[in-house]
Amino acid sequence: MYTTIEHDGVDDQVAIEDPLEIRVDGSPLVVTMRTPGNDEELALGFLYGEGLIDAARPAGPTADFAGNTVEVEGPLTRDPGARSFYTTSSCGVCGKGALEEVAVVSAPLPDGPEISRALAASLPSRLDQPAFTRTGGVHATGLFSAQGTLLFSREDVGRHNAMDKVIGRALLDGLVPLAGRLLCVSGRLSFELVQKAAVAGAPILIGVGAPSSLAIELAADRGMTLCGFARRGSVNVYTRPERILD
Amino acid sequence: MYTTIEHDGVDDQVAIEDPLEIRVDGSPLVVTMRTPGNDEELALGFLYGEGLIDAARPAGPTADFAGNTVEVEGPLTRDPGARSFYTTSSCGVCGKGALEEVAVVSAPLPDGPEISRALAASLPSRLDQPAFTRTGGVHATGLFSAQGTLLFSREDVGRHNAMDKVIGRALLDGLVPLAGRLLCVSGRLSFELVQKAAVAGAPILIGVGAPSSLAIELAADRGMTLCGFARRGSVNVYTRPERILD
Repeated sequence: MYTTIEHDGVDDQVAIEDPLEIRVDGSPLVVTMRTPGNDEELALGFLYGEGLIDAARPAGPTADFAGNTVEVEGPLTRDPGARSFYTTSSCGVCGKGALEEVAVVSAPLPDGPEISRALAASLPSRLDQPAFTRTGGVHATGLFSAQGTLLFSREDVGRHNAMDKVIGRALLDGLVPLAGRLLCVSGRLSFELVQKAAVAGAPILIGVGAPSSLAIELAADRGMTLCGFARRGSVNVYTRPERILD
Repeated sequence: MYTTIEHDGVDDQVAIEDPLEIRVDGSPLVVTMRTPGNDEELALGFLYGEGLIDAARPAGPTADFAGNTVEVEGPLTRDPGARSFYTTSSCGVCGKGALEEVAVVSAPLPDGPEISRALAASLPSRLDQPAFTRTGGVHATGLFSAQGTLLFSREDVGRHNAMDKVIGRALLDGLVPLAGRLLCVSGRLSFELVQKAAVAGAPILIGVGAPSSLAIELAADRGMTLCGFARRGSVNVYTRPERILD
């Protein structure tokens, strides 16, 4: 997750960033810049968010850590297109051919759960962020129960990778769709993070940072409760406030 | 740059995020999630960073703001490949076909300039960030003289877009390569930001946040001075410290 380097005469730790090639049946599909580790989760979460595999998929992929590749067995749910597509440490809409294709289809989210405003505001402080503590250079995503118990969290130089890893873990554990659970991210709320959460069926997404206009628009469309600026005991609720109780 | 929305019974402002399709001679090349505005600069900066146009290019592109498209006249310097490639609000390595192709070729950087450590540490506070002040939801990149005078800065929901816009502006103003000048970003230092700065010939890149391992590696390889955690009067110098005078 991190490595020691020397600068200004002192030893310091920095987050590792390396390319990962996701391969399907031996053919390169995508290259992402990520922090090594949990590469199988990353591959599954990414493919699921793109609508390329379904939640019932039983077999896990095989990561070659040294080779910076991860192999996934096909077939995929849909044809990703004749071309390859590519992504990076903080990318997500890669592979879309035109403006109208930017949004991945996902089902409207179910009602509930209902949580207190205080719990929503406190969720980021409950994230497990050991690599951030050492490097200051990684994002985190965590999956929580509706009572605010952390199920697991992942860190990565790319914020969308951190979410892909969490969703990949949830797929392996049979937890998708994420109805009744909470997703929390350590940074800003982009369109792409809302899309990944919506495809995974998360009814509530909470972030430490600001949402974008399109993130709010997509959350409203899918029926997701989107919360931002969750810090210092306060939180903004941008959409579907009925799940947040005062 | 931002729009007014209502949440929790109050009016608030959020950064706009919208897809932009960059077209070359009428054909779609790439879709990026960006904050609208300065789309011509974004297109030029992106294409330059990918090695697809050269600095001598005279004619500017034509943006259709309402249509979320920008048209660039070809031909490109090299064939981007038969396929399209795609990027997002915080992406950059899109379109690379294999791990070994991740890095764009760029020339080693020239010696100089030399600046004081105090100037390096203060540069982020000299960025112009009106949209961040209103929304908390955008990144900024600024181009500075070696004396610390801000030439211009740009904001965007995507940090690599903000840098693309600055480099695109510099291309239009005939300032590329950026020898003798300073680039400064409001966030973390990824591989991709170092790559864009290196291709544009920037000898010094300063960020408020942490660098990744690969960002440091690439900066060292290209002879760039990479500075991170520039805040509260302090700065870390990761590579080529001879340009930073104590």
